Amino acid sequence: MPDRILLIDCPDEKGLIYNITKVIYNHNLNVVSNQEFVEPDAGMFFMRTVVEGNGWSQEIEENLNNVLPEKANLRVATMKKRPVVILATKEPHCLGEILLKNAYGVLPSDVKAVISNHDELRPLAESFNIPFHHVPVAGASREEHEEKVLKQINPYAPDYLVLAKYMRIFTPGFVEQFPNRIVNIHHSFLPAFVGASPYRQAYDRGVKIIGATAHFVTEDLDEGPIIAQDVLPVNHTYTAKGMAQAGQDVEKNVLSRALKLVLEEKVFIYRHKTILFE
Amino acid sequence: MPDRILLIDCPDEKGLIYNITKVIYNHNLNVVSNQEFVEPDAGMFFMRTVVEGNGWSQEIEENLNNVLPEKANLRVATMKKRPVVILATKEPHCLGEILLKNAYGVLPSDVKAVISNHDELRPLAESFNIPFHHVPVAGASREEHEEKVLKQINPYAPDYLVLAKYMRIFTPGFVEQFPNRIVNIHHSFLPAFVGASPYRQAYDRGVKIIGATAHFVTEDLDEGPIIAQDVLPVNHTYTAKGMAQAGQDVEKNVLSRALKLVLEEKVFIYRHKTILFE
Amino acid sequence: MPDRILLIDCPDEKGLIYNITKVIYNHNLNVVSNQEFVEPDAGMFFMRTVVEGNGWSQEIEENLNNVLPEKANLRVATMKKRPVVILATKEPHCLGEILLKNAYGVLPSDVKAVISNHDELRPLAESFNIPFHHVPVAGASREEHEEKVLKQINPYAPDYLVLAKYMRIFTPGFVEQFPNRIVNIHHSFLPAFVGASPYRQAYDRGVKIIGATAHFVTEDLDEGPIIAQDVLPVNHTYTAKGMAQAGQDVEKNVLSRALKLVLEEKVFIYRHKTILFE
Amino acid sequence: MPDRILLIDCPDEKGLIYNITKVIYNHNLNVVSNQEFVEPDAGMFFMRTVVEGNGWSQEIEENLNNVLPEKANLRVATMKKRPVVILATKEPHCLGEILLKNAYGVLPSDVKAVISNHDELRPLAESFNIPFHHVPVAGASREEHEEKVLKQINPYAPDYLVLAKYMRIFTPGFVEQFPNRIVNIHHSFLPAFVGASPYRQAYDRGVKIIGATAHFVTEDLDEGPIIAQDVLPVNHTYTAKGMAQAGQDVEKNVLSRALKLVLEEKVFIYRHKTILFE
Repeated sequence: MPDRILLIDCPDEKGLIYNITKVIYNHNLNVVSNQEFVEPDAGMFFMRTVVEGNGWSQEIEENLNNVLPEKANLRVATMKKRPVVILATKEPHCLGEILLKNAYGVLPSDVKAVISNHDELRPLAESFNIPFHHVPVAGASREEHEEKVLKQINPYAPDYLVLAKYMRIFTPGFVEQFPNRIVNIHHSFLPAFVGASPYRQAYDRGVKIIGATAHFVTEDLDEGPIIAQDVLPVNHTYTAKGMAQAGQDVEKNVLSRALKLVLEEKVFIYRHKTILFE
Repeated sequence: MPDRILLIDCPDEKGLIYNITKVIYNHNLNVVSNQEFVEPDAGMFFMRTVVEGNGWSQEIEENLNNVLPEKANLRVATMKKRPVVILATKEPHCLGEILLKNAYGVLPSDVKAVISNHDELRPLAESFNIPFHHVPVAGASREEHEEKVLKQINPYAPDYLVLAKYMRIFTPGFVEQFPNRIVNIHHSFLPAFVGASPYRQAYDRGVKIIGATAHFVTEDLDEGPIIAQDVLPVNHTYTAKGMAQAGQDVEKNVLSRALKLVLEEKVFIYRHKTILFE
Repeated sequence: MPDRILLIDCPDEKGLIYNITKVIYNHNLNVVSNQEFVEPDAGMFFMRTVVEGNGWSQEIEENLNNVLPEKANLRVATMKKRPVVILATKEPHCLGEILLKNAYGVLPSDVKAVISNHDELRPLAESFNIPFHHVPVAGASREEHEEKVLKQINPYAPDYLVLAKYMRIFTPGFVEQFPNRIVNIHHSFLPAFVGASPYRQAYDRGVKIIGATAHFVTEDLDEGPIIAQDVLPVNHTYTAKGMAQAGQDVEKNVLSRALKLVLEEKVFIYRHKTILFE
Repeated sequence: MPDRILLIDCPDEKGLIYNITKVIYNHNLNVVSNQEFVEPDAGMFFMRTVVEGNGWSQEIEENLNNVLPEKANLRVATMKKRPVVILATKEPHCLGEILLKNAYGVLPSDVKAVISNHDELRPLAESFNIPFHHVPVAGASREEHEEKVLKQINPYAPDYLVLAKYMRIFTPGFVEQFPNRIVNIHHSFLPAFVGASPYRQAYDRGVKIIGATAHFVTEDLDEGPIIAQDVLPVNHTYTAKGMAQAGQDVEKNVLSRALKLVLEEKVFIYRHKTILFE
């Protein structure tokens, strides 16, 4: 049974794979799968290795760090399900998709709660026995509302926040509390149609393909590292509303695909991009 | 054998299909295929009808005009191959694709000539026995160069100009001489990455899908009505150059698909969009 | 507001569209959308027309029948939601998808009940407040089991049965009670990999693309008219089980797409094929 | 500059990557890219490594063989263009695609000749200055014809034969002279529609998606290891001929994609399947 996932990034240098696999070999572990990538612009090395054997020790980790360059990052992940909190607004399709896949073990997630600025999705969350917290916006400033949302999130100590069509924009102050840990679904093929009403924009422009983009949330709206994208052909018979309806399936598929990659520790972030070891 | 393609657009009103098919019926013609669309924003009616029978007459056309609203446009097209002139620069993939499909009758085109601001593609054009005209830019102003290009084009009296990776931008003065008659391939999924070096932009943004867009050329660069689009998945292992190479197949496929629709008279333009009767 | 959907099929003859639209025009109805197709092998005419106006009458229907050929079929459908009964076995993904889309009005369905030969999916059905009937197979012959299933189905008087990964094969006697009214999802790209364990077959063959097929159920297993298909790229890293997991999203998407077409009365069946007016 | 591509397959054992990269490291070579796969059924290990450095020597190869298990295969490939002979019959689309990509360096191929059982494609081959050999079938037995074809092929000493819609079936005796070295394009989504007239079969079955398959040719017709597949949506408006026309673009794209993988040494064959290091 696989024991650990090793995630290494560092400046590239000769012999890295040799030196890393030497430590693994000397500790009598077996490499189940191994993927590397050298980013050409900056010469950065990325490696994801799944090992199995007679357990894991602090000593292996130390020995690995000893053979890595000074500036290396080594993460050691287990196969456990990751705690997740979902934020949504009114649309059920993305939330429903994740709750279904969470319930049936298709996603390695442990959804702890659903938080919304509206109350519409409560029955959906509760039908899956997931706690639902309604945090209304009315009367609260942006910062006050975020404070209340945070108060609901924090007790669950989630590894990741998932924005399943959460229609509010977070302040940088909120985002920086979850660096590279907020996954959002944007209902367009970014960078086309940033901002509001992308389907209306797509309709007005007369595009023949629409899409959806799952990305990490950063301070720059719609500019975070892209994890997954997919598209759908449309034509002149689609209204803006028809595009929005048709796009729902793509949105939920892309979000759940991205979430699976993230939860399975297959995603590196470097600068504004992702490296995916699928 | 199909005789004529009728292309009608006008403000929608009750009984249009009835009135049009009545004329066709009374003239003992058979409807081979029939497609309609009512544009919802402005209530415009579009109809494409292929008829066959004992020939076509001026009288049928008059009778059709009599039952149509005052502001209607009626075009009557035949099944003949359409004369086309291609403009290209240095890249052979789109030009090669069209010349192949032209040579083997896959496109209903009659390519009359290839014009280029460079001489690199001459052997390709000439291997298909198509006249090649090199119109160098050096020493000429934009307008002077366009004058020379026009001089080469005009004797061929083309119905359409095809920009098969022609890397120069036409002035509005040039474009207005071929209204809705210039088809361009843009090497991005418009409206993402307008302007120069779209693959470099796509690489910098870290998108997971790249694409290409065939569109009519208007005075507004990259803003003309979109005819066809297609996409290709990419990942972190693609350099900007790798994306450009991979994108070539999509570019040529999209351009040739768009061109087929245009030449078969399956495209209506309304405002900034196309209506495709595929 | 659209009043009626007219569905006409008959041997093709000159003037059909004219004669049909004449009746519509004379009754002061407006054609909202209109699609026709002439099947080339047998010369059959198919037409789907959505009309709106001041209501519908028996007289219009009679007048339509008067202008149609003797062997014509005219169906007149309304916009109402259609009663549906779902059959499933143990896998939740297709059932969950339909129940979600049914609950939120994305499908024009009125799911009356879920019937299963196992009890595993009861919580899923009940979380959406849909009655769940467990009809165990043990101790019953094939015919006896079908009798019991029928007894559960009949009180709901469904327009359609949906087999959402129902892993049993019906006898011809059962099928003929729901002619062209049972929609099944097969977990392969038919006609590749008919029969059992299609993902295992796909794995053994080493295909690079897997798929799913939604079709009407006929007496001939896996041979019914195909409504929708879609595919997914795979590679050598997929085990048979991995293909099955990855295929779940395609299965549910294809089934729900097919179901939408069927419920919206956009599907004609002719011989062993479907004609889709999308 | 990359020097060599190492292709290793052997039974999996602990420490393989370590032992291989140790040799590479000790010879002061740099790993440009590295991909591995362990086939789960038989526990076979596959590795493709691109190295660069101060040249390659027989010694490195010996040292690699010393650390590999007894049953290992080690191939060492260079970056040179590979000699290829194309066989075709009458259809120009696949041949044209490869000749274009060969001419412009998009494929790492060196097309030496085109051989055909008909003379139709001579002008196409000759327009790219590629020798064309017409080997008529008339009057010759199957074996005699193959003898004549072989006589044309052999002087070119091709690494690979490409069947670009070559409509004849080779005898096992012919095939075994080019083991895993004949690439064919089949005009269906295998294993659907094996044998003759796949588009006619697809039309008769009423499928909603058609496809093409590039595969290595083995003694079992249409059963060789699949390299690449792709598909195209179709609908009821397509005749069998219309499917064949639409399918041409997919055929040529799939064939040229497969050929690129093969020529770039990214394909392992194991049992009846391929492992692709894309």
